[in-house]
Amino acid sequence: MLLTADELEKRLRAIGAERYHRLHPFHRLLHSGGCTKGQVQAWALNRYCYQAMIPVKDASLIARCDDPDIRREWRRRLVDHDGERAGEGGIARWLRLTDGLGLDRDYVVSMRGVLPATRFAVEAYVHFVRERTLLEAIASSLTELFSPAIISERIEGMLANYDFITRETLAYFVERPPQAERDAGFALDYVKRHATTVERQQAVIAALEFKCDVLWAMLDALYHAYVEPRHIPPGAFVPAS
Amino acid sequence: MLLTADELEKRLRAIGAERYHRLHPFHRLLHSGGCTKGQVQAWALNRYCYQAMIPVKDASLIARCDDPDIRREWRRRLVDHDGERAGEGGIARWLRLTDGLGLDRDYVVSMRGVLPATRFAVEAYVHFVRERTLLEAIASSLTELFSPAIISERIEGMLANYDFITRETLAYFVERPPQAERDAGFALDYVKRHATTVERQQAVIAALEFKCDVLWAMLDALYHAYVEPRHIPPGAFVPAS
Repeated sequence: MLLTADELEKRLRAIGAERYHRLHPFHRLLHSGGCTKGQVQAWALNRYCYQAMIPVKDASLIARCDDPDIRREWRRRLVDHDGERAGEGGIARWLRLTDGLGLDRDYVVSMRGVLPATRFAVEAYVHFVRERTLLEAIASSLTELFSPAIISERIEGMLANYDFITRETLAYFVERPPQAERDAGFALDYVKRHATTVERQQAVIAALEFKCDVLWAMLDALYHAYVEPRHIPPGAFVPAS
Repeated sequence: MLLTADELEKRLRAIGAERYHRLHPFHRLLHSGGCTKGQVQAWALNRYCYQAMIPVKDASLIARCDDPDIRREWRRRLVDHDGERAGEGGIARWLRLTDGLGLDRDYVVSMRGVLPATRFAVEAYVHFVRERTLLEAIASSLTELFSPAIISERIEGMLANYDFITRETLAYFVERPPQAERDAGFALDYVKRHATTVERQQAVIAALEFKCDVLWAMLDALYHAYVEPRHIPPGAFVPAS
């Protein structure tokens, strides 16, 4: 059945309420102080792989888009993550977090210790954006609708619960919410205007579910390797005990 | 340091001895009778996703190969998995296993219940074969070197330990070892003849490690969802309890 634009938005927000990784047990552990330093390191190291691929994902979207207005709008995301010069932008701020956690920067950037499942999930996201319709590619970014809430939980929870975490190391998260709100607003508006058939609406819903699956699978892999049963795959990061 | 062809083979076999999924705790459970029927169903359902994509992977390799000899050789794999007519070949035999386990065939083929992490790992394999060099693509198939041993363990272990498993439902595994030996022999010979620089040898080693990671990550995801902590991601198969 064809939804109105507002019903579609409600449906998309409901996906966030049910499937966004804020609900994953790993995040509950992380935010409540239940993680060891090694587990926080593993999280930051693996999440670096995601952060580092975001501009590749966004450039892949720009590369397949023939509308200069959308390309210009989407280009802001490249600026947010890559900055205007070396040492600026979201990826550089993520490295301040991994530095603060005592991880060697070359090791982090090499991604040698990243869980294969993290890599596969992140690559699935990049390939999705390259291979599906532009509408689905844009819709897959809509998890940003839900990120400001998780970020405020994270900043408060991690500052309160870990003595090895400082406001400076969390600079990534301090900068992120207004960017995410602007980006999610644009993408949601685009999706509401262009998902005008049942088929397109279903594709948009599936794209957001897919993206929730990507984020969820990353935390499943972390949980398996570093929380329970702590079964680290061959070659992946091993925390100092 | 440049290895001789025989040293390279030894190095590749050592990867199997260290990283092949035969060593994964899920396989120990599966083969020793430690799985519930629901866990065996989850394994067969998720592994179907892998089986179903193998001909897509192999056709991707043929599609990028300009040597008719290799294309012809590799075409046998399509025949093995897709058969000469409907109802024949490895995928059809895999469905006899899922049938025998009481899974609905339409549900299995739809892949709706497959773990996202399984899908991401399988897609990573297909993309690897499409995007890397032909030598790396061929090397990534070399896990077949190690499969005859795991298959004989599996047939004996599963027949002895589960009353819901019959020789007929394991037809896939009965047929597979001679095919795998032939294919692995060809691929190993190709790799030994073409990996003639240090760089190519390292790429071949990394390709086989990558493929071991794919198989390992699939079992990590199964273990997390269905063994411990039995945390099934949203939307994935839930065994009848």
